[in-house]
Amino acid sequence: MSEQDRLTHVREDGTAHMVDVSAKAETTREATAQAVLTTRADVVALLASGDLPKGDALAVSRVAGIMAAKQTPSLIPLCHPLPISKVTVDFFPGTSEVRIEATVRTRGVTGVEMEALTAASVAALSLYDMIKAVDKHAVIGDIKVLAKSGGKSGDWTL
Amino acid sequence: MSEQDRLTHVREDGTAHMVDVSAKAETTREATAQAVLTTRADVVALLASGDLPKGDALAVSRVAGIMAAKQTPSLIPLCHPLPISKVTVDFFPGTSEVRIEATVRTRGVTGVEMEALTAASVAALSLYDMIKAVDKHAVIGDIKVLAKSGGKSGDWTL
Amino acid sequence: MSEQDRLTHVREDGTAHMVDVSAKAETTREATAQAVLTTRADVVALLASGDLPKGDALAVSRVAGIMAAKQTPSLIPLCHPLPISKVTVDFFPGTSEVRIEATVRTRGVTGVEMEALTAASVAALSLYDMIKAVDKHAVIGDIKVLAKSGGKSGDWTL
Amino acid sequence: MSEQDRLTHVREDGTAHMVDVSAKAETTREATAQAVLTTRADVVALLASGDLPKGDALAVSRVAGIMAAKQTPSLIPLCHPLPISKVTVDFFPGTSEVRIEATVRTRGVTGVEMEALTAASVAALSLYDMIKAVDKHAVIGDIKVLAKSGGKSGDWTL
Amino acid sequence: MSEQDRLTHVREDGTAHMVDVSAKAETTREATAQAVLTTRADVVALLASGDLPKGDALAVSRVAGIMAAKQTPSLIPLCHPLPISKVTVDFFPGTSEVRIEATVRTRGVTGVEMEALTAASVAALSLYDMIKAVDKHAVIGDIKVLAKSGGKSGDWTL
Amino acid sequence: MSEQDRLTHVREDGTAHMVDVSAKAETTREATAQAVLTTRADVVALLASGDLPKGDALAVSRVAGIMAAKQTPSLIPLCHPLPISKVTVDFFPGTSEVRIEATVRTRGVTGVEMEALTAASVAALSLYDMIKAVDKHAVIGDIKVLAKSGGKSGDWTL
Repeated sequence: MSEQDRLTHVREDGTAHMVDVSAKAETTREATAQAVLTTRADVVALLASGDLPKGDALAVSRVAGIMAAKQTPSLIPLCHPLPISKVTVDFFPGTSEVRIEATVRTRGVTGVEMEALTAASVAALSLYDMIKAVDKHAVIGDIKVLAKSGGKSGDWTL
Repeated sequence: MSEQDRLTHVREDGTAHMVDVSAKAETTREATAQAVLTTRADVVALLASGDLPKGDALAVSRVAGIMAAKQTPSLIPLCHPLPISKVTVDFFPGTSEVRIEATVRTRGVTGVEMEALTAASVAALSLYDMIKAVDKHAVIGDIKVLAKSGGKSGDWTL
Repeated sequence: MSEQDRLTHVREDGTAHMVDVSAKAETTREATAQAVLTTRADVVALLASGDLPKGDALAVSRVAGIMAAKQTPSLIPLCHPLPISKVTVDFFPGTSEVRIEATVRTRGVTGVEMEALTAASVAALSLYDMIKAVDKHAVIGDIKVLAKSGGKSGDWTL
Repeated sequence: MSEQDRLTHVREDGTAHMVDVSAKAETTREATAQAVLTTRADVVALLASGDLPKGDALAVSRVAGIMAAKQTPSLIPLCHPLPISKVTVDFFPGTSEVRIEATVRTRGVTGVEMEALTAASVAALSLYDMIKAVDKHAVIGDIKVLAKSGGKSGDWTL
Repeated sequence: MSEQDRLTHVREDGTAHMVDVSAKAETTREATAQAVLTTRADVVALLASGDLPKGDALAVSRVAGIMAAKQTPSLIPLCHPLPISKVTVDFFPGTSEVRIEATVRTRGVTGVEMEALTAASVAALSLYDMIKAVDKHAVIGDIKVLAKSGGKSGDWTL
Repeated sequence: MSEQDRLTHVREDGTAHMVDVSAKAETTREATAQAVLTTRADVVALLASGDLPKGDALAVSRVAGIMAAKQTPSLIPLCHPLPISKVTVDFFPGTSEVRIEATVRTRGVTGVEMEALTAASVAALSLYDMIKAVDKHAVIGDIKVLAKSGGKSGDWTL
C-alpha cells in the first residue's frame, strides 16, 4: 500500500466523492461473491430437503438478491451505475447453514464486486427475515468476493 | 420449534406471502444489530485515527446505513413498511476490523430487526466499497441482532 | 353521477393534485383484484403442472407483485402512501391462461384498490416477461377489482 | 416451441435468474404496446372532449407511464436495465374506453417490450386511480405488444 | 440560539443521525413552500398564456413535484418517513418568472417543511428541464417556507 | 428563439414526452451547477469553522447530493437515464451563506445539467434540513448552471 496513503474515493482534503471513470475502458467484467447464513439444522430443514427447496423461501431470497444487485448504486453512495447484463444467485444448504453465491456480469467501465456482494448480502437478509421467527439468533457472515475477472487489475479467484 | 413445522411467511402450499399484521398493536419497538468489517490494520488506519474519522469515509457509510434502513421494505420482499422514528449508526474501529452498530426505533406494528440488520449491512458494504482498492480480501461478518425491545415476544439482549 | 361533474383528483381549474385525506378515519381496509394472462396451453404447461409450479417462474412473479404493491405510491402519481399490512398473490393456471389474484390489507385512511390492482398487474407483467421468448402474442387483460371492504363507501364483491 | 422445453429465464434445475446478455449486440430497438381502460361513456367524457383533455388527468397518466418505463427493471425482477432513449404515451378516447399506446426506444442489448408494456399498464392504472370514485367497475385489458423492431428476432407489427 | 450550540441532527461527537421522534404527538401538520424559476418573458409565454397552460409542461412539473414530495425521505438522508395526506402544487406565471407554491399536509409526528420544499424545488427543476434548450441561463431561487401549522413549535406565516 | 415556437419536450398537440436521443453521439459531457443556502452567520458557524466542517453535516449533504444525481431520471419526468461517471459536491462557506457546487460527468448521449442542478439542489435541501430547527427562515437560491462541456451545443462557462 506504499503507493497510496489514502482511499481512492477520498480527496486530500478528506472529502469523499464519486470518482471519475469516464476514461476507463468498457469491457466485460464479472464478480462472484458469497454470504453465509448460520442457523440451526432444523431451520435449514425448513428451507430445503437436501438441495431441493421446500417452498418459496429460497426463490423469494433469490429474487431479493437479483433485484438488490440492480439497486446497488442507490444503496452504496459512491458506487457508479452500471448496465448489469447477468445476475445469478444460488443457495447451497449445509448442515446448519446456507451458503449463498451471487455472480454478476456487466459490459461496463468498473467492476461489479459491489453488485455481487450486495446481491449475496440482501439474499441472506431476506432468508434471515423468513427464519427470524424460528431462530432469532441466526448470524450472517463470511461475506466476501470469491472471484473477479475483466478490468485492468487482473483476474483472480480465491 | 415443535409448535411450528413451517416458516411464518410460507403457507401450507409452500408459497410465500406478506403476512397479515393489521391486528397487531402499535407500540414503540427498537432493535440493535451489528456487522463487522475485517480488513488490515493499515486499512483501518486509513479510516480512523483511534476513534476519530480521518475523512468522510465513516460519515458516508453512516448515511448509507441510515438511508438503507428506510429502504428495507423495498429490499426485503416480505417485509412490512414501517414509520421509522430513529436510526443511529456507530463505528467502533479495532485493530484490523471496524464494528458497525445500528439501532432503529419505530412506533409501529412489527419489529425492526430487519431495518437494523439492513442498516448495519449496507454501512459495512459502503465501507467495503471505499477500501476495496486497497484490500480486495476484506470480509464482512458477524451480522446479527444484539438486542430487541417492544412487541409481544419480549425484550432481550445478547 | 349527477352529484359530480368532475373527477375527485381534478380541481375546478382542471389541475390534478393529491387530495386531502387527513380527516379520514383510520380503519382496516382490504381489496382484492385480478389480472389474467392469456397465452397458449403449452406455455401454461411450462409454468405449472396442474396447480403445481414447474420452477421458480410463479414465485418470481408473486414476489414482483408483492413488491409492486409496496411501490404503488411511487408509481401512481396521486396515490397516497399507506402502511400495507398484508399482501397475498395467488396464481390459478387454466387451459391457456393464468389468472392472478392479489389481496392487500391496510390499517389506513384510504382504500387499497390501487395497491391490489398494481400487485396483480405487475405479477402479470413479470409472468409475461418470462414467457415472451416463447409467446410474443400473449395478452394481459380483465384487470379489475373483485372485492373491497372497510371504509365509508361500503363493502362489495363482484 | 419444439426447440425449447423450458423458459429462457429458468435453468434446468427450475431456478430463475437474470440471463446473460453481455454478448448481445447494442442496436437501436423499439417496441409499441397498448392497454385499454374500459369504463362508461360519461366517465370518458370527464377525461376528454373528443381528443382534447378536459384537465390534467391524461397528462398525469402520461407522466406516470413515462416514469414507469424508466422503473421497469425495478419492477420486473429478471429484466435488464437499459438506457431508454425515448418514451411516448398517447391516449385515444373512444365511446366508453380509452386506448393507451406507449412506444419506447433504446440503443441497447435487449428489447424494450417490457418497458412499453409497463408504460401502457401504469398509465392505465393511473387513469383508473382518477376515475375509481365515479366508476368502481372499470376494467383494464387488451395489454399487448403491437410492434417491435431492432434485435435479431426480426421486426413485426400486429 | 443561546439554548443550543449544535445542530439537532448532530451529536456531541460530531456525527449526524436520524433523531428519535417516537415520543412526539401525531397531529395534523401542514407546510407551504415556494420556488421561483426566473427566465425570459418569451419563455414564460411558451409555458402559459396568462394563467392558462399552453401544453403539458406545467402538468408534468406538478406531477414531478407531487411525486418528489413522496420521495423526500429517500432524498434527504436524515428525514423521517411520513404518511403524506395531501400535496398541491400551483404555478403562478409572472412577466419573466414562474412562482411555484407547494402545500403538503400530514397526520404525523414531524413537520412537513422538507416535503413542501422538495416538492417546490423538484417542480422547478422539472420546468427548468423543459426550457433549458431555449434558455440555458434560467435561475431557480427564493426557495423558502411560507407558512407552517401544527406541531409544538407554533403556527406561522411569512 | 425565432427557430422554435415551442418547447423541445412538447409536441405540436401540446403533449409532453421523452424525446428521442437514440441517434445522438455518445461523448464525454460535463456540467457544473450551484445552489446557495442563505442563513445567519451563527448558523454557518455551526456547520463549519472556516473551511473545515465542524461535524458530519457537510458530509451528509454531500452524500445527499451525490445520491440525488443518480436519481435524477426518477425525479425529473422527461429526463433520460445516463451512466454517470463522476460526481463531486463541494461546499464554500461564506459569512452568512454556504455555496454548493456540483460537477457531474458522463459518457453519454445527453448533457448532465439536470444531474448537476439536482445534486446541488438536494445537497442544499439536506443542509436546510439540518439547520431548520435553528433558522426557520433560511432561503435556497441562485441555483444555476455554471459551466457545460461536451455535446454539440458547444462548451461554455458563466
